[in-house]
Amino acid sequence: MSEPWLPSLRTATPQEGYDLAVKLSRMAVKMTQPDADMRSQLRAVYEQDASALIAVSAVVATHFQTVARANNYWLD
Amino acid sequence: MSEPWLPSLRTATPQEGYDLAVKLSRMAVKMTQPDADMRSQLRAVYEQDASALIAVSAVVATHFQTVARANNYWLD
Amino acid sequence: MSEPWLPSLRTATPQEGYDLAVKLSRMAVKMTQPDADMRSQLRAVYEQDASALIAVSAVVATHFQTVARANNYWLD
Amino acid sequence: MSEPWLPSLRTATPQEGYDLAVKLSRMAVKMTQPDADMRSQLRAVYEQDASALIAVSAVVATHFQTVARANNYWLD
Amino acid sequence: MSEPWLPSLRTATPQEGYDLAVKLSRMAVKMTQPDADMRSQLRAVYEQDASALIAVSAVVATHFQTVARANNYWLD
Amino acid sequence: MSEPWLPSLRTATPQEGYDLAVKLSRMAVKMTQPDADMRSQLRAVYEQDASALIAVSAVVATHFQTVARANNYWLD
Repeated sequence: MSEPWLPSLRTATPQEGYDLAVKLSRMAVKMTQPDADMRSQLRAVYEQDASALIAVSAVVATHFQTVARANNYWLD
Repeated sequence: MSEPWLPSLRTATPQEGYDLAVKLSRMAVKMTQPDADMRSQLRAVYEQDASALIAVSAVVATHFQTVARANNYWLD
Repeated sequence: MSEPWLPSLRTATPQEGYDLAVKLSRMAVKMTQPDADMRSQLRAVYEQDASALIAVSAVVATHFQTVARANNYWLD
Repeated sequence: MSEPWLPSLRTATPQEGYDLAVKLSRMAVKMTQPDADMRSQLRAVYEQDASALIAVSAVVATHFQTVARANNYWLD
Repeated sequence: MSEPWLPSLRTATPQEGYDLAVKLSRMAVKMTQPDADMRSQLRAVYEQDASALIAVSAVVATHFQTVARANNYWLD
Repeated sequence: MSEPWLPSLRTATPQEGYDLAVKLSRMAVKMTQPDADMRSQLRAVYEQDASALIAVSAVVATHFQTVARANNYWLD
């Protein structure tokens, strides 16, 4: 996990900020379960599980809050 | 997911801000499960599951917090 | 959902703010499950489910945070 | 629910603020399940359920965040 | 619960702030389930339940956010 | 738990801040379940449980919010 993947929280648009929030939500899963094959198997399961998808959405919401603040809500 | 869907976090009214929060909560599900038919099947299930509906409401609440701040709580 | 239901986040008192938070938590459920009969059935179930009631309370807490800030914590 | 129960978010001490957060977490349950006997039955169950107790603690944490801010963290 | 246990949210270091967040997360459980023997039994169960441990960690995270702000992130 | 592990919330980069958030999320588990062998067993289980991995990611998201603010979003 030494290669750089998060140089900044600044994004040009809200939509890019949302994409970054999705990335941030996935990275903790990757760091906790580093095995790509296992993650792939788990993904096949939770993609068909409504509760898991909603839980993913909750994590994205928290990260989007952080990213939005870092960008002053893209108001500037 | 390249077409623009989030040009701004600003809305004219609190109610439009709430609608945007709902949209933000759904988009993470869409990005995690891009298959529309599968989402449709899952929706048929969780629409009848109280816990899932409450969990959706929790995600909306977090996004509404973000949108409300971006709009200075529509006080201006 | 076109009739206005959220003209403002301002309330006269903390208690009215809490009531608004409850309303905000219910509206996302209503927008996700628009069928009133189905919601009524689900309500009969989750009213007797401690975990669901606590989950509802969690959503109210997040919305109350938003409403409280919008009102500067009713300090003025 | 018309009698006043939340005149203010201000408390004299952090500990009283915590007590208020507990009260705020319980009130949403009371408003969703107004039947005192039913709440009493549910309480007997979730008092012995570790997950439910932790979930209650999570709601208190969110409300304590709100109350702490309303009191400027009792720094004044 | 009348003896004082929370005189202040200020701590000398971030680590002491984290310890306080752990204490805050446990106190709501104690107030909801005042019976020490019952809590001891529940603890024996959830200490071996990964989901419960993660849920505890989530509550600590919310309280740590509050404590960190109260201390201006220990930047002074 | 007396050795220092959290001298500061400041980090040089967002990515180091994210790593700190992961560390903060794990420490509460460690303090609640101090037995390293037991944690190792639990980890073997939840690493293969999508819901648990998403829950871990949620805790990281909350801590990252705290760390990001402590660093003024690394904008300086």
